[in-house]
Amino acid sequence: MTDRIVYLDHAATTPMLPVAVEAMTRHLSGVGNASSLHASGRAARRVVEESRETIAGVIGARPGDVVFTSGGTESDNLALKGIFWARREQDPRRTRILATAIEHHAVLDPLLWLGRYDNAEVELLPVSAEGVLDVESLRDSIARDPSSVALVSVMWANNEVGSLQPLDEVVALAAEHEIPVHTDAVQALGQVPVDFAASGVDALTFTGHKVGGPYGVGALVVRRDLPVSALVHGGGQERDIRSGTLDIPAIAGLAAAVEASVKAQHEHAARLTDLRDDLVRRVIEVVPDAHLHGAPSGPRRLPGNAHIGFPGCEGDSILMLLDARGIECSTGSACSAGVPQPSHVLLAMGCDNDQARHSLRFTLGHTTTPADVDALVEAIGPVVERARAAKGL
Amino acid sequence: MTDRIVYLDHAATTPMLPVAVEAMTRHLSGVGNASSLHASGRAARRVVEESRETIAGVIGARPGDVVFTSGGTESDNLALKGIFWARREQDPRRTRILATAIEHHAVLDPLLWLGRYDNAEVELLPVSAEGVLDVESLRDSIARDPSSVALVSVMWANNEVGSLQPLDEVVALAAEHEIPVHTDAVQALGQVPVDFAASGVDALTFTGHKVGGPYGVGALVVRRDLPVSALVHGGGQERDIRSGTLDIPAIAGLAAAVEASVKAQHEHAARLTDLRDDLVRRVIEVVPDAHLHGAPSGPRRLPGNAHIGFPGCEGDSILMLLDARGIECSTGSACSAGVPQPSHVLLAMGCDNDQARHSLRFTLGHTTTPADVDALVEAIGPVVERARAAKGL
Repeated sequence: MTDRIVYLDHAATTPMLPVAVEAMTRHLSGVGNASSLHASGRAARRVVEESRETIAGVIGARPGDVVFTSGGTESDNLALKGIFWARREQDPRRTRILATAIEHHAVLDPLLWLGRYDNAEVELLPVSAEGVLDVESLRDSIARDPSSVALVSVMWANNEVGSLQPLDEVVALAAEHEIPVHTDAVQALGQVPVDFAASGVDALTFTGHKVGGPYGVGALVVRRDLPVSALVHGGGQERDIRSGTLDIPAIAGLAAAVEASVKAQHEHAARLTDLRDDLVRRVIEVVPDAHLHGAPSGPRRLPGNAHIGFPGCEGDSILMLLDARGIECSTGSACSAGVPQPSHVLLAMGCDNDQARHSLRFTLGHTTTPADVDALVEAIGPVVERARAAKGL
Repeated sequence: MTDRIVYLDHAATTPMLPVAVEAMTRHLSGVGNASSLHASGRAARRVVEESRETIAGVIGARPGDVVFTSGGTESDNLALKGIFWARREQDPRRTRILATAIEHHAVLDPLLWLGRYDNAEVELLPVSAEGVLDVESLRDSIARDPSSVALVSVMWANNEVGSLQPLDEVVALAAEHEIPVHTDAVQALGQVPVDFAASGVDALTFTGHKVGGPYGVGALVVRRDLPVSALVHGGGQERDIRSGTLDIPAIAGLAAAVEASVKAQHEHAARLTDLRDDLVRRVIEVVPDAHLHGAPSGPRRLPGNAHIGFPGCEGDSILMLLDARGIECSTGSACSAGVPQPSHVLLAMGCDNDQARHSLRFTLGHTTTPADVDALVEAIGPVVERARAAKGL
């Protein structure tokens, strides 16, 4: 038992880095709308543009590629709807959108909406048992009718099981037919190397609160020559793609967090990989039939992700029993965690309903210590025993 | 001349209130996604729900009416598109949207988009020379075919010239045919009494950074029984109307600012009215052919707004000359201030291009002092003289 919180849910949200808190706090008492012409407005604008340059510099983009939004969900919606609308306007035959079956709801739900209300033909492509896109199915789907594909959206890394996706191959396949590729890199940035230009993708989503920055701010990084229809109309900020008064303190905090987390990425990943591998190994020692979901430890898996199945348990029971001991984790993505449904990611990986429901996600981050792993290892045995007993009843 | 900044552009953005900075700062180092099930998640959720209750309590709404968004532009887009889509889905004949010709771009631009890409018939209704909706034109427009009206959107108070709109009459006319009414109250909240239930509107937009709260957060207050289609899809937060991780620190800061500014509204308005009346009187003493645009001082005008025409000048020239003396104001709304176009608001009020371009907006706020007014009065004579000379050249 522990009397402090053991937070193992960094993929849901991770605490702000001190440099980001400092950058944000510095601007909270400022004044001046970044669209105003006077000195205060120009000073506010400078903060925005310097932040844009900082971010572009560390993610391999040009400043003009970075469109600030309110976060990952808005960026994903903007990418999918905005690119779909613009591409279809150029050529009405472009009605298909291809994505993986394991995208985040911020991608899946806009796609379902486009399919239901806007005549998009959405194809969700299968993944392997490790949660990795089946590239052949993408190749086949494109080949069936390349000119009808408006865009392809494949996440950089899955938020539940941590599997990195074969983006290089996706980009190569799409490039043959000049189909734009969007990637949701919300979970990848700061965890694995992310370089916008080198990746070859046309649009990339990231968000502040997953990289040690603030909530309520993120970006869609999108090539300037790719037409994107606006989702939110108004004052014409952000290349007329995303209207709304610019959030200066949050943007400054975002830039500080992106810069710090990208610069520390290599060291951070090595540290988390060790901690995560230790966690998985010791949990399985205590609960021998527990097993890791997703890719094995290594270059195809997020360093901080341990997604573990505990046969004979309800994931929700383990979550609550651990929570009662001050250990915090998740049964899936936080966004849908309130809804007791089996994870669409695990189902797509071939788990049955029961397997999908007996799984838990532990995600490590910048505040995680060996003591956190110790606390989980100490608690997991009795907790699983109790959860199994509860299910048996 | 002054060596400090005289900030007379509070309608563009107003500095955060200390209570809002304090509330926000308190949560910056917190952890926990409000959608997570564990203790940290539940604590984050409590902050959100207590903030929602605080806001609802001071604006005459029920907590369940308050949908948090990223700000005024998003709220306006959500109201217009979301209510239009939902109402038309209920009855395909509902294709008309009625609004005033002097709405903010965050209303006008979504309407133009709906008209261009989604078969909406948008009618922008005329206003008087004082910038007040011509209620008869609304009556006529509704009467022409009441069952085809999807919604009516009329701002509470105009952001440029400060004229309050006859919302009571708008609501009464719309209610005869059960047509929902949306109002953009971004400039009204905290400046004049705003009570959601008493107003009879169905949906109301406000935003943080105009009431002494943070940027990047606002709300659409919308009756729970009014269907609203989502604009941003994903995790299903905020009644499934607005997905995206909730921005806990910003929401806490917003609640603190809304509570403080609404509670202080009466006193604040009296103080600003006095300062504003003094400003207008003394500016006109110095520049005798200067004149106030919009409604006269009194209950039909925002207390902090002085929108003044200076014949024979370019507004941009005065703005820059004042800025050089540390006095900050605006030629229109900040969102479009970068674009040298005559204000659509002044044109709708019957100004010609020249009249529209020789006008400036001074907006007072919680940090404004008599010394700020003195500084403007001292500067305005020589500045206008110089601007006239520049124009004569």
